[in-house]
Order: sequence, then C-alpha cells, then structure tokens
Amino acid sequence: VETAFRKIVQRSGVGADNALLLGVSGGVDSVVLLDLLWRFGPTEGRCLQVAHLDHQIRPQSHQDADFVQDLCDKLGVPCRVERIDVPGLARERRLSLETAGREARRDLLLRFAAETGASRIVLAHHRDDQAETFLLRLLRGTGRTGLAGMAELQGIWWRPLLGFSREQILAYAGARKLSWVEDSTNAETAYRRNRIRHNLLPELAGYNPQISRRLASLSQQFQLEEDFWRQHLAEIWPEVLLNQEDGLRLRRQVLVGLHPAVKMRALREGVRRVRGDLHGIEFVHLEALSSLLQAKSPQLELDLPGCWAARRYDQLWLRPSKPETAAFNLVLQLDKPLRLPDGRFLLARLCEENVSESDIQVAFELSALEFPLQVRSPLAGDRFWPSGMVGRKKLKNFMIDMKLEQEQRQSVPLVLNRGEILWVVGYRRSALAPVADQPSQRLVLTLLQGADSATKAL
Amino acid sequence: VETAFRKIVQRSGVGADNALLLGVSGGVDSVVLLDLLWRFGPTEGRCLQVAHLDHQIRPQSHQDADFVQDLCDKLGVPCRVERIDVPGLARERRLSLETAGREARRDLLLRFAAETGASRIVLAHHRDDQAETFLLRLLRGTGRTGLAGMAELQGIWWRPLLGFSREQILAYAGARKLSWVEDSTNAETAYRRNRIRHNLLPELAGYNPQISRRLASLSQQFQLEEDFWRQHLAEIWPEVLLNQEDGLRLRRQVLVGLHPAVKMRALREGVRRVRGDLHGIEFVHLEALSSLLQAKSPQLELDLPGCWAARRYDQLWLRPSKPETAAFNLVLQLDKPLRLPDGRFLLARLCEENVSESDIQVAFELSALEFPLQVRSPLAGDRFWPSGMVGRKKLKNFMIDMKLEQEQRQSVPLVLNRGEILWVVGYRRSALAPVADQPSQRLVLTLLQGADSATKAL
Repeated sequence: VETAFRKIVQRSGVGADNALLLGVSGGVDSVVLLDLLWRFGPTEGRCLQVAHLDHQIRPQSHQDADFVQDLCDKLGVPCRVERIDVPGLARERRLSLETAGREARRDLLLRFAAETGASRIVLAHHRDDQAETFLLRLLRGTGRTGLAGMAELQGIWWRPLLGFSREQILAYAGARKLSWVEDSTNAETAYRRNRIRHNLLPELAGYNPQISRRLASLSQQFQLEEDFWRQHLAEIWPEVLLNQEDGLRLRRQVLVGLHPAVKMRALREGVRRVRGDLHGIEFVHLEALSSLLQAKSPQLELDLPGCWAARRYDQLWLRPSKPETAAFNLVLQLDKPLRLPDGRFLLARLCEENVSESDIQVAFELSALEFPLQVRSPLAGDRFWPSGMVGRKKLKNFMIDMKLEQEQRQSVPLVLNRGEILWVVGYRRSALAPVADQPSQRLVLTLLQGADSATKAL
Repeated sequence: VETAFRKIVQRSGVGADNALLLGVSGGVDSVVLLDLLWRFGPTEGRCLQVAHLDHQIRPQSHQDADFVQDLCDKLGVPCRVERIDVPGLARERRLSLETAGREARRDLLLRFAAETGASRIVLAHHRDDQAETFLLRLLRGTGRTGLAGMAELQGIWWRPLLGFSREQILAYAGARKLSWVEDSTNAETAYRRNRIRHNLLPELAGYNPQISRRLASLSQQFQLEEDFWRQHLAEIWPEVLLNQEDGLRLRRQVLVGLHPAVKMRALREGVRRVRGDLHGIEFVHLEALSSLLQAKSPQLELDLPGCWAARRYDQLWLRPSKPETAAFNLVLQLDKPLRLPDGRFLLARLCEENVSESDIQVAFELSALEFPLQVRSPLAGDRFWPSGMVGRKKLKNFMIDMKLEQEQRQSVPLVLNRGEILWVVGYRRSALAPVADQPSQRLVLTLLQGADSATKAL
C-alpha cells in the first residue's frame, strides 16, 4: 500500500505547494488516509489540515469528534470540528439522513477550504465504495448518467484511495496498529448500502471474484464518458437552443439531425434545465419526447413528470407546465390605450390622412363602425373575411394556414365590430370597412409593444 | 400484447414489401413470435418464412425440428430445417456449445435470407433476455462496449419482442393455447445464464421490482451510445492513424489532444485492429497505453495480451508482437549488389569523376580503403566520426541526436573499413577517407530500394 500510495501521489501532480484539507470521520478509511498523507503525502504532513463534522445523528457523536481531535493532536495536525444538526437538516430539507449528512459534509469542507486557503480537499473513498455506489445506482434506477463514478481528481476534490480495496485499507490499518471508531450509524442511515456491501457484493463475487475491481473500473469509464458528454453537449447546445424566453424553445431540425445517442442527451438536458433536476425522468420519457419530434402532426403535446413538452412546428417547447391561455373579452375605446393580456397595447385613433397598413397597423372607414369595439380571444366557430380574399373562412383554418401555434390560436386578440372580426391582431385585417378613396374619417388601430410606446403614440 | 405488438410493427417501418425470415427454435419465445407475426405481422403471414437449426446437441434434437415443421405446416408457412453438428463445431473452433450454437444459427439465417431474398431476419429476443445478457456481461468482465445491448432494428435483424417481458410472452402463449418445446439443453449449455435468470434476477428484484426493465433500458442506451462511438471513432480515425505498413503507427499528438474518453476508445480501436479482437484487454491495459503517451521518455515499450506497443517519439506503434531485429554481419564486394536484411541493396562501384553525395550515396578515396568492406548492425560501444564534426562520438549518442527509433538503432546498416565506421547507411558518412580535390579513384556506395534498381544501377 505504501509504495502504491507514493506512486499515486506522484502521478496525481499534487505537489508540496498544495495546502490539503482532509475530511476525517474517524472511521478506518479516513484514519488510514490521514496516516498515509502524514507519512507520504506531497507535503509529508505539512500544510495538512483536518476537518470533522459532528453530525449529531447519535447522542454520542461527539465522542467521534474527540477521537479525531486527539488523533490530530498526536500527529500535530490542525483539526477543526463543527457541530451540525444533521437530523434537523434532514427534516427541514426532506432528505434522507445519509443525503443530508453528505451535503452538510460537502458544504463544511468547501467552506473550510475557502477559509484556510486549501487547494485540495482529500477524501477517503476507496474502490469498494465506488463499486457499492455503482450497484446502488444501478439498482435504484437512476439514469445512465448516474452510473458515472467518482474520479480520483475532480476539481478541488482528491480521492487518492480510489484504487485500493477495503481489504487493503484494513490490512494497512492493522499493520500500522491504527485505531479508529466504527460508525454505528451505518446500520440505520445506509441500510441499502450495507445490504449491498454485505450480501450482494459477496454473492456477485461468486460469479466473478474480481467484481469489485470490475465495477469500479466501469464506474471510472462512465465518469470519463460523462465528462465527454458534458463537453459535447455544451458544444452543440447553442445550435439546439433557439431561445429561453418562456421555458425553452429547441430547434427540432437540429435535434432530429443529431445522432440518437446525442439527441437523447440533448432532450434530457432540456428537461433538466426546465425542471432543475431529473428525478423521476426515465429513458422512456426521453423516447416519448423523441417521437414527438418525429410525429406527423406539427402540434402535439406531452406531459412528463414536472415538465410539459410541445412540438410547435419546427420547435420543441419545454416548460415546467402547460402555459395558461385564459380567454378574454375587452372593450376598446378611442384614444385610450388598451392593455392586452400579453402586455402589449392596442390603440384606436381617428385620422383623416392615408396611413400605411402593416401587420401592426390597420385603418378602417369610421362611418362603417360602431363604438366601442370589442377585443376578445377566439371562440370556436369564429369566421373571418380576410382582406384580399373572396368570402369568409373559418378562423381556425386561417390560423392553420398561418401556422399559428396552439397557444397563439387561443390567445391572438381579435378586434370586432358588431360581432364581425375586423382584425386578427398582428396577422390580417378583414375585408370589411375598407377606407374610401376620397378623404374621409378613418379609424386607425395600432398594436404597440409596451406602455411607453402607447403613451408616446398619443 | 396484441395491441402493443401491432404498434411495434407499425413503428418499426417494416412494411408489406419486406419478406421476413423468422428463426424458430420451437421454444415459447419463437413460437409466440411466429403466432404474432402470422396474425399481425406487416405481411400477415404472407412473405413469411421460418428457419430452424437442428443443433444435434441432444440425440432427440430432431424432435424439435419435427415440431417446428408441423407447426409451420399447420399455418401454411414455408419452413427450412438444417442439421448442423454444433458439438463438432464447438470442438473444432474451441468454442462453448452456446457460442458455437449462436454462430451456427447466425450463419444459417444470413445464408437462408440471402437465398430467399428475405429483407429482414426476425428474432424472438425479449426484455428479460436483454437484462440477463446485460448482467452476464457485467459480471463476466467484458469491456464497457460489451454492455451495449441488442437493438430492436439493427441492419437486417429485427427483434419486435424486445419490449416484452418473459411473463407477457408466457401469458400470451397461455391465452392462445399455443404449445412449444422446452429446450432441455438450457441447463447444460447456458448454466450461467440460468443461474442469473433463476437466482440473481429475482434477488435483484428484491432491491428494485423493475430491475429487468431497468437493465434492458440501460442496455438499449448503451447500444445507442456504442453506435455513436463507432461513428465518432470512424470520423477521427484518419486523423489518428499515420500508417499501417508494419502494424499500426498512430499519431501521439492527436491522441493526446483527444478527450480522455475518446482517447481510450481510440487506443482500444488500435489494439483491436492489431489483434483482431479484444479478448482479455481490460481498461487497465488502455490506461497503461495512455501513460505510455504521456511519459517523459520518448521511447518506451509495453507488452499487452496479444499486442506489443511502443512509443517512438511522436508515434505510438502497435504490433501483434515485438519486431525482431536480428544482428547481421555481411561482406560488401565491388560491383556486387549486397542484399540487406530489410530488403534494400547496397552497391559499391568505382568512379573517377565527382559524384554528388546524399543520404543514399557517398564517395570515399579508394586508396584509403581495404577490400572487402564489412557491413553490419550496430554493436554496443561503437564509435563514429561524423563528417563535419571534430572528433569521434559514441554511435549511440549520434543516433539519439538523430532521433532514430529503437528498432532502427539496432538494425541500421553500418559500412566499415578496417573496423572503422565509414557510413551510417542512410544517415551520415564519416569524415574518414574523404575524396581528394584532384582526380582520383573513388569508391561510390549507393543505397538502393530493391533488386530492380540494383540491377539497373549496374
């Protein structure tokens, strides 16, 4: 172990200029790591500090803290202990004791490292931990990504024991006559992990005596690959993402053109960004998203756990939930800007000159109108006489031709005069009430982006 | 099952224009698949053919063949049976009965498909097969790549039952009152698989009742990713490969610049190409290869199972075995081309004019020489007076300066006159016996690529 550890230290590139912070629980793994670092570490004991979390899961948890403190005193290594009410934390954040403990430890180590200027935080995870975690996640059903193991060096974290088995660590502890504390919380907080350690792994060793090494190696490969995927995804993401104004809008064409393995990861990344995490998202959900992209219908929707997805023509729209499109029915008066539900404004003014018409401005012959005008969202059965066309058309068909998205179809403002649609706001005026060739009083309707421009227009 | 199967057929895109060849062992899986295809297949029984391999593993294996033949006769589906001596094949090719059987079946189906013009070969693998195979490979220790599962559609192969569990298949068989044969070879040929099916999987289900679905889904994801990696590797390979004249020469700089996950795969691909397969190659071997690339020394070697690897400056050289560089000691006579061990020729001629010198042609003052000249491979302690330099130098240091590869250092031909090196052939002449300024008899030595040019030069 000694020789191997020295090699690992050398290979790691962690040098004497690195101040190290070591997390010590008092268990055999961290006691052995402390001993090894103290003897053969890059700094041979100098620039080494120890942190211990007194997790208060058991009333006698301070005894572990005392043990670690004593051990450090004997070695002359500075030691900081912090008491954190992990059970309270677990209740508060609705986490398991194990998860709450892990998070508290992580926060503590990062904080201490920042305060003491340590450039590496050293952890005592070993190969069997890696194998157990792999099985735990394999069985639990976390996604493919969850199978990625811990890396020996990962940012500030350093795990120099990752290549050693529990057996080797115990043998070293025995040979060095080290003493340590047994974490009696194991049995309660990590029941599943213990079952895997004591029942499943030994049984799998009956199929393959090297199983632990094998799983740890796989874990490590997955970790490498995961890092590749992260990088690859970051490279293609700007291509995939159209905008993130309201949820995420992804480019369908780009997604469809990706290799299926990459496409699935891009879809998962989209869901992750919308939800913040991926709990409960399974591969079947991603497959469903993928078939949404390939479906014949250009507008389909899908409810995933904590995520709503919709194909909208050449876009995939992801949101935490289905957008609300409340119906509305308003009254438009002359010279009074009307605030639409989407925040834009509609303004009606009189004018005697010709005005140029556009998507956002139309003019009608005043004499044909009756005030006030009605402004409402579409209703089933609405019909409309688009300017430039002969006769009426179903509004729905008009909107299909315009390739309006489902949500726009439900919320596009209509301006009506005596029950007849005058203007599908932003899209097309009707053929009704055209302005006369000779000078006359006209009503000009303008769509404005915000309150400022509405006031200014007046 | 019926509805799900119809959907799968639809989604698969396998249409009525596809002639199908179905492999039927007579077991419940293939009997159910035959029934489903016959009822709901894209061709509803038409354009459907059955193939059966009578594997002769048991004396009564022909009974299975008869059963399949009868079943097909009843349905009016053409059936071809072929007897193959699988146990003999296994002995001959030193394979397990299971592997030999699988290969024989595969060959048979591909041959029949080609003969009958079938465009799809349909197989009855289901979700539990997928999960079992995953565990089998996870435990066996095949590489990361081995975890890639079967795909529903993969080239000519179609596995429409991959989404169904064994339970569903049995339930369907029961509901349809189908009969089938039990493959009694199971217990012998697939002992491990059976242990996984009957012991391990039920136990894992105690941790996660959905384990089978979970593993099958992972398998499928790995299959997708594997396909991505294949494609990605094919894209970068031309960059990585320098040449394959003698084993493989890979570009070290390119490899080092790759993402570690990609680098490992590229290294594995190199080993695969050199060996033909990857049996016994583990991740640690690839890691060793990788550290060869990063080592300080520009010339290091490594023996892997069935593959020899050497860093040679900016190249990684992979060969099935270490190249042999036998020492040699030859005699060079005037006007008689001398064949060197590497196949090139050395020619000594007299000349009275000036000749231009180059890497492959040098001239010496004849009066300073004594015939015949010696041509040999380098010996330890050789010294040499390179032209243009003052005094002698160790030949070894000269070769280090020239960045000669290890194998070249051992095999570069030296031309000697009375024990003194005249020419390090192809690299540098010595300062000895320079040609006089005035006309004189010179000896011209020329290095020629082959016998043809040697004859022509005379």
